[in-house]
Parts: sequence; structure tokens; C-alpha cells
Amino acid sequence: MISHIEHIGIAVENLTEAIAYYENVLGLKCYAIEEIADQKVRTAFFQVGQTKVELLETTDPDGPVGKFIEKRGPGLHHLAFAVDDVNRSLQEVADKGVRLIDQQARPGAEGLQIGFLHPKSTLGALTELCGKK
Amino acid sequence: MISHIEHIGIAVENLTEAIAYYENVLGLKCYAIEEIADQKVRTAFFQVGQTKVELLETTDPDGPVGKFIEKRGPGLHHLAFAVDDVNRSLQEVADKGVRLIDQQARPGAEGLQIGFLHPKSTLGALTELCGKK
Repeated sequence: MISHIEHIGIAVENLTEAIAYYENVLGLKCYAIEEIADQKVRTAFFQVGQTKVELLETTDPDGPVGKFIEKRGPGLHHLAFAVDDVNRSLQEVADKGVRLIDQQARPGAEGLQIGFLHPKSTLGALTELCGKK
Repeated sequence: MISHIEHIGIAVENLTEAIAYYENVLGLKCYAIEEIADQKVRTAFFQVGQTKVELLETTDPDGPVGKFIEKRGPGLHHLAFAVDDVNRSLQEVADKGVRLIDQQARPGAEGLQIGFLHPKSTLGALTELCGKK
């Protein structure tokens, strides 16, 4: 089902400050900034080998990333696995008893389809499935 | 400096239960279990494309992973970037003002050298550098 880690999502308080850290200190290169209205975030992407780092700044204190930072502070937010067919994989994990946040795939960043599993079912790690269909 | 994401560390309450989830639900395969006395953890590794998932169960409630779970619950714990020379990279980021947990590389899992940056300097994401020397 899973081919690789598509990206790691990191909640940050200030996207500009965070991009500067990842570029100037770690030497990574931001290749895209995108606002995802549906998730109430502005994101910045860095390619790191096969995987991406996705920085997430909330555009609304009541959005999911705003609430996450209010509760836990900034830091690692979610882990996204690349799959071929998001709807098929969501159905597969649901059949194995996993509670879903998204019953159906929806559009995410970079034109990909995405679906989140509920962290209550994934031992606390917020997990996303991500794919081209 | 960074070539790829070496692994994602995930704090879990029970390694056996967590391995069963990653194997049976997500279809990944655990290829190694290792106790790292220095970090007071028992770890399980899964290869996912170029990157690994490292599950971490504390062997001591007062160890770093035990304290993390007590404070924040289980979930995403740290992000490890692969570098060529850990000591050189630690020096580079320290020269740029990053506070270090490890001033010098020390032995980690899988025979690698590792060094942690302090989350106060990495915008909340606990960050490890990891390499063969």
C-alpha cells in the first residue's frame, strides 16, 4: 500500500521565520509556498531526498494547526505516507478498524489527493495518506 | 549538508502493540528491534522508501521518551536528517546560533553516529543529525 514517506508536516508559528531557519541553518531550499484554504494553512515545501518537509502556518487561530499549536506548541504535526489510490487505502485501513478523519479523499497541497486517519487510531501520530488519485 | 531524511522517530507506549499496528494496518515490515541503553529506549525500525520509521518505547519512565509521553502523549517525537559527518554538521549549526543537546556525536541505533539539536533552537521540532561518521 505504502511506497514511501511523501512528507513530514511541521506546525510553525511564523512561516517566514521558519523558512529562514530551514534554509539558512539546515541548508534546505524552499521550492513552493501554497495556501490551502480548506485546511486553513499556508505551507512551505522543501524537498529532502525522496521526502518533503512541509511547514504549516495557520491562517486562522481556530484552524487545526492553530489549535495544535495552542495545545502543544509548534513542532512535528503529521506524517504523510505516499499511496497509489487514497480512497482504496482509506477503505483498507477502515476495514482494519482504523477511525478516519476523512471518509473520502479530498484535494490537498500540490494537487495531490489526501486523507487523514484519526490519531486515536494511529497511536497518537497524526497520519495522512497522500497520492495522485 | 543534508542528503535525505534518515528516519522519523515516533514515541509509543507499547512497542509490541505499535509494531502490530504498523505491520498489520499499514503493511510495513519491522526489520530490526534494538535496545539503546544510552537513550533508555527500545526501538523498532521499518524501511519506508529512502526513510525509516523508528518506533521508540521507553525502558525507564524518567528517560527522555518516558518524559515526552508523560507530558505530550505518544506521537511524533523527532526528525532525523542524514548528513555525511555529524560532528562537522553539529559545528556548522552551532556556528549559526543553534543550541545543541549533543556537543559531540555519540553512538546511536544501527551503528550510526548521532547528535541532537535543542528544540528551543529548531522551532519546536526535535531534530537529530545522523551519519556514518
